[in-house]
Amino acid sequence: MNFCSECGDMVKLLVPDGDNLPRHVCQRCGTIHYLNPKLVVGCIAEWQDQILLCRRSIAPRYGLWTLPAGFMENGESTTQAAIRETLEEACARVDIQQLFSLVNVPHINQVHLFYRARLLDTSFAAGLETLETELFSEQTLPWQSLAFQSVTLCLRAYFADRKAGRFVFHEDDLPRPVAPITDHLQG
Amino acid sequence: MNFCSECGDMVKLLVPDGDNLPRHVCQRCGTIHYLNPKLVVGCIAEWQDQILLCRRSIAPRYGLWTLPAGFMENGESTTQAAIRETLEEACARVDIQQLFSLVNVPHINQVHLFYRARLLDTSFAAGLETLETELFSEQTLPWQSLAFQSVTLCLRAYFADRKAGRFVFHEDDLPRPVAPITDHLQG
Repeated sequence: MNFCSECGDMVKLLVPDGDNLPRHVCQRCGTIHYLNPKLVVGCIAEWQDQILLCRRSIAPRYGLWTLPAGFMENGESTTQAAIRETLEEACARVDIQQLFSLVNVPHINQVHLFYRARLLDTSFAAGLETLETELFSEQTLPWQSLAFQSVTLCLRAYFADRKAGRFVFHEDDLPRPVAPITDHLQG
Repeated sequence: MNFCSECGDMVKLLVPDGDNLPRHVCQRCGTIHYLNPKLVVGCIAEWQDQILLCRRSIAPRYGLWTLPAGFMENGESTTQAAIRETLEEACARVDIQQLFSLVNVPHINQVHLFYRARLLDTSFAAGLETLETELFSEQTLPWQSLAFQSVTLCLRAYFADRKAGRFVFHEDDLPRPVAPITDHLQG
């Protein structure tokens, strides 16, 4: 951030009075620009013993498989975001069941939420950001070709809970990767 | 948003190619500026049959009671945010137990998360944004003087679960208020 989005003047990184972290502060109008983590919200859409995955048609992780998910928008709730993303990426209609997993990804300033959801029918299809959509069981799921570590964690917990005969809420923090980050989910 | 925070030129509200919502797009450098909901994270800090509340020394809702909570920062996890906010607002140290409540507040683009936490000792005190801190039981709690509807919802569920002898995860959506909004949580 170089310029104030309110007045267009230069911003400076400094700790405002009464604060304890450096913020981008406008040198003309005084606006303090806070940067906060973003929510990525999606669904584990279930059909019998299978769940729906999307193969990505966009960077990052082109060609790899993921749960339908994306950035939550202003003005919507987390379940509305999950339903919308599932419709946009997989053309799939779902009934939301419950929040299943929260994964913190602090090194890219994201929090991922995944809801268990019931697929209403099997008329899903690839959305604009998807090459193909497919239902997978635990055995057929492309575990080695998943796009994001948060999805892998979530799905491991999901199939473990299913074996145990009960679903509980899971929370995890992803560690900072050892290799430099070259890409991440884009807005 | 009037200006591009990257290059300082004017932004225009338009629907970018491949998108379906209007975004602030820079007319010079092409940067798309996304606006997304913010996470507010806090604690229900327990001490025996009581929980810790803070009386606000800042707007909005000056003088009203709330759970220690605030905006999640970049680079931290949700539990780190809950612990930090509880330390900042109530000078209180806690052990996080589990996520108890998620409240969507879509009309102000916020998602509130409240964790159950165990207060490590009773050496709490008012932080910079707090007039006073106090432990309350369900009977002594100032229900009519709570600052935020999300806190009221969360605490109702909390004491109901405690009576039921088990805590489960709760999710709620706050409806848009009928009266115009004059204030909301600030960054």
